[in-house]
Amino acid sequence: VVAYLSGYVQHRIQHSATCNCRDTLHQVVQIASVIATYARMQQGKEYIAPRTDLSHGANFLYMFKGQEPDPLEGEIMDKCLLLHAEHGFNASTFTSRVVASTLSTCYCSISAAMGALYGSLHGGANEKVVAMIEAIGTVDNVRQWVNDALDRKERIMGMGHRVYEAKDPRSIVMEDYLLKLSEKHNDHRYYEILKEIETVFRERMEEKGKPIYPNVDFYSGAVYLMLGIQPILFTPLFAAGRVSGWLAHILEQRVDNRLFRPRALYSGHEPREYIPIEERT
Amino acid sequence: VVAYLSGYVQHRIQHSATCNCRDTLHQVVQIASVIATYARMQQGKEYIAPRTDLSHGANFLYMFKGQEPDPLEGEIMDKCLLLHAEHGFNASTFTSRVVASTLSTCYCSISAAMGALYGSLHGGANEKVVAMIEAIGTVDNVRQWVNDALDRKERIMGMGHRVYEAKDPRSIVMEDYLLKLSEKHNDHRYYEILKEIETVFRERMEEKGKPIYPNVDFYSGAVYLMLGIQPILFTPLFAAGRVSGWLAHILEQRVDNRLFRPRALYSGHEPREYIPIEERT
Repeated sequence: VVAYLSGYVQHRIQHSATCNCRDTLHQVVQIASVIATYARMQQGKEYIAPRTDLSHGANFLYMFKGQEPDPLEGEIMDKCLLLHAEHGFNASTFTSRVVASTLSTCYCSISAAMGALYGSLHGGANEKVVAMIEAIGTVDNVRQWVNDALDRKERIMGMGHRVYEAKDPRSIVMEDYLLKLSEKHNDHRYYEILKEIETVFRERMEEKGKPIYPNVDFYSGAVYLMLGIQPILFTPLFAAGRVSGWLAHILEQRVDNRLFRPRALYSGHEPREYIPIEERT
Repeated sequence: VVAYLSGYVQHRIQHSATCNCRDTLHQVVQIASVIATYARMQQGKEYIAPRTDLSHGANFLYMFKGQEPDPLEGEIMDKCLLLHAEHGFNASTFTSRVVASTLSTCYCSISAAMGALYGSLHGGANEKVVAMIEAIGTVDNVRQWVNDALDRKERIMGMGHRVYEAKDPRSIVMEDYLLKLSEKHNDHRYYEILKEIETVFRERMEEKGKPIYPNVDFYSGAVYLMLGIQPILFTPLFAAGRVSGWLAHILEQRVDNRLFRPRALYSGHEPREYIPIEERT
């Protein structure tokens, strides 16, 4: 899903052979600009130049929609990027550090990190949450749908996180934003469906004694939808937020660099006799 | 150095959103073909279609030069790619596995691995060895040059390896190829300079009790030069060889996948009071 966009971003940032990472803060802004512009062009609209008087998030909405967002929406978009900015040694950040440890450019590191984010175990969960909301349709359908899914041993998207054993603190903020946007638009459908999913899911998990709670992706997709952003842009926006964290990690890696070079333990076959390929059966 | 080429390769392999890794063996061949074709086009020459009756290495030389290499050269080129194919959890391979662990595509994994190979601590050493040979010029200059460099605490390129505490077994094979090519072309300049560097370097290391020996990059650059390959293509050729190892690791990662998600230990400051940016001094 992110491929066509990350591909586009790569074309812009890849082809510089030299790179001074201290000067690369512009990348943080550029990725959001590229996403906004790309989305506009997909709709046959013109590029809009960024403004200097808006926050990063509000600027994205302005460049994306062509009109200044109201202060609440601008602030929420800005905080969404901020909440996605950094999250320790997640797979994409770890990727960026391994690449940086070779003293490769930060363009290569960030491009590699985007490749990791493209993986379905890393990016894309909020898109799937939104698809789940649409599949469920109404709040009255939630209990049956969730119970059926769990009975079939399917995963409920946006639930659980490798690091947290409690509710992801980012999801608490996201839930609050969704509530505010629901009140503003006087439309609580997404909010109510998600809260009901959370309730039913928690009941089932408590029966099994498994503490699994919503992660940042559970509410963020609905927040983006209510900001007028289509699901295909969710993972690119994750990249637009996380790029500041990637860059920070790249800089940290370089301060006291040591090449990542793990040793592998062989756990395969004992030595086997070589059989020429034409003699194999 | 590899950027302009790896960029080119990426354009070819990046833009497929779906990817069945079992079908991607064609990438192994494609990268060498792309390098050969790119190098020809840089010289204003036409694309040459690959042949089915040559080895992978001989085919590269054929597509690169436009005429069939003699059997010795074809075999050496093929073995050079083979010697570079796999080397455990080196930084680029590790990168490819981290990206693969997100269930991203192998295109993203390989693109990320190339980004790691671009780093000066991973790829590019054989180019620097060749530059060192040219800087030294003649075998008579070697002793003085190496002693001066070591006295200035400079690194001698192509020496030492994170994994080996003896001579890199690949460099023994490379040395033999260089000798064979030197005999064939009746030109022992590269060979003699490199052997003299190895001798002087070993003497100095033995004085210090440090066992540091040539790695695969020490002889490979001179081998490539004698095959008619310019230094700018050395790291792309490393990628052309290593891609089969990257793919093998990606496939292995998927067999029993678990997302790479290391935990970080905080080693920074104690909590500090937040000071708004305009109030900082």
